[in-house]
Amino acid sequence: MRIDIMTLFPSLIEGVMQESIIGRAQAKGLIEIRATNIRDYALDKHHKADDAPYGGGRGMVMLPEPLYLCHEALTGGEHVHTVMMSAQGAPFNQAKARELLARERFIIVCGHYEGIDQRFIDTCVDEEISIGDFVLTGGEIPAMAVADAVCRMVPGVLPDETAFQEESHWNGLLEYPQYTHPAQWRGLEVPPVLLSGHHANIARWRHKMSLKRTRRDRPDLFAQWAPQDKQDKKILAEILAEEQED
Amino acid sequence: MRIDIMTLFPSLIEGVMQESIIGRAQAKGLIEIRATNIRDYALDKHHKADDAPYGGGRGMVMLPEPLYLCHEALTGGEHVHTVMMSAQGAPFNQAKARELLARERFIIVCGHYEGIDQRFIDTCVDEEISIGDFVLTGGEIPAMAVADAVCRMVPGVLPDETAFQEESHWNGLLEYPQYTHPAQWRGLEVPPVLLSGHHANIARWRHKMSLKRTRRDRPDLFAQWAPQDKQDKKILAEILAEEQED
Repeated sequence: MRIDIMTLFPSLIEGVMQESIIGRAQAKGLIEIRATNIRDYALDKHHKADDAPYGGGRGMVMLPEPLYLCHEALTGGEHVHTVMMSAQGAPFNQAKARELLARERFIIVCGHYEGIDQRFIDTCVDEEISIGDFVLTGGEIPAMAVADAVCRMVPGVLPDETAFQEESHWNGLLEYPQYTHPAQWRGLEVPPVLLSGHHANIARWRHKMSLKRTRRDRPDLFAQWAPQDKQDKKILAEILAEEQED
Repeated sequence: MRIDIMTLFPSLIEGVMQESIIGRAQAKGLIEIRATNIRDYALDKHHKADDAPYGGGRGMVMLPEPLYLCHEALTGGEHVHTVMMSAQGAPFNQAKARELLARERFIIVCGHYEGIDQRFIDTCVDEEISIGDFVLTGGEIPAMAVADAVCRMVPGVLPDETAFQEESHWNGLLEYPQYTHPAQWRGLEVPPVLLSGHHANIARWRHKMSLKRTRRDRPDLFAQWAPQDKQDKKILAEILAEEQED
């Protein structure tokens, strides 16, 4: 997996992508995340990457030509799937992360200032992606979120290859609560079932807690869930009965 | 505005938060974002911050005691609003960013590994927030997204105090396309109205483009919009007619 990030702040991205799990995966050669400075392709003497918007208004807009030349240098004239981080974009989610994972390589363009000249977008960008309905100072943090979500699924990046399969939003349910040592902590106990050693009961309790949480906190996700078997139906009946008691 | 971020990777956060717009705002003393290493509060000789989950399963869970001591050191025993980044949380959006902006100070807890001991969450965390339906290697990138979204609204952080008022998701509509120099670029022209100098026509065109984009790309947002006046009604009629032509 190779991801190129086009940005005005390459050191910001490189710093983060050299740390933690993603940094180790890069060191092992499993993934490659490169940040390229758009300003290096601003060919006037001041390395100007932005200018005032046509039609007036506050702020600056990123010039199309430096973006185009930077993109061309990365693609070498071949088609490379290009994503732009933008509040205008389609919401990023786990399905989109898996779709990007299936590509060997893609480019992420980070916007800044008031935006990017629309003609560059029309010419070079295949899709606009948003990480949520909130406004940030630039596209760098969203680009890192996309790179992280995709790269953690590359085989070998997480210590256990099965790791990502059970986690939240993978199967459409929220995760069950987790507990570790000590069993007694500041007057609070670990739920006894987790100390029982009875694997089937533990699995059942965890599944029930996942369903209970999803129903309480994310009714939109719960609405898409349906019982798979008899045990699911029984757990659902228990949850409904417990809600009535509360 | 002061934001404390509890993390296992403080240098990752500090690097990003010293750059760009947020870095300049910190240098000016408008905001203060501090990253505190949870591991510094792991008091055993190995500075162990995690352990295996009760009940079995893959991965490690963050111990409650180092988190508790770190949190206590930051709050000094006072109540400080505490947010945890979690895929289980309520979706982060611009309304939540404004809510956090209204607080003078808050703490963000970054999860890692398979999660955090539930008893720490029950004891110290006021709310869990998610930046979207995707899974990341840790809470650091989401925490930076929250800090960035909140801090950019602190007066003086952006060059123009009115800057954030017009942008996407502030008024529930997507932004209009932006154009800058040159007027002719690789065979593509800037829409003539933007070169006309006619302010009312430019404002009307931009508003129409915002509505058109929102209707096409985010019907969920468009459904919450209603025409404010006669001009809005006329623009909406034009958009509907143009859609029929396409």
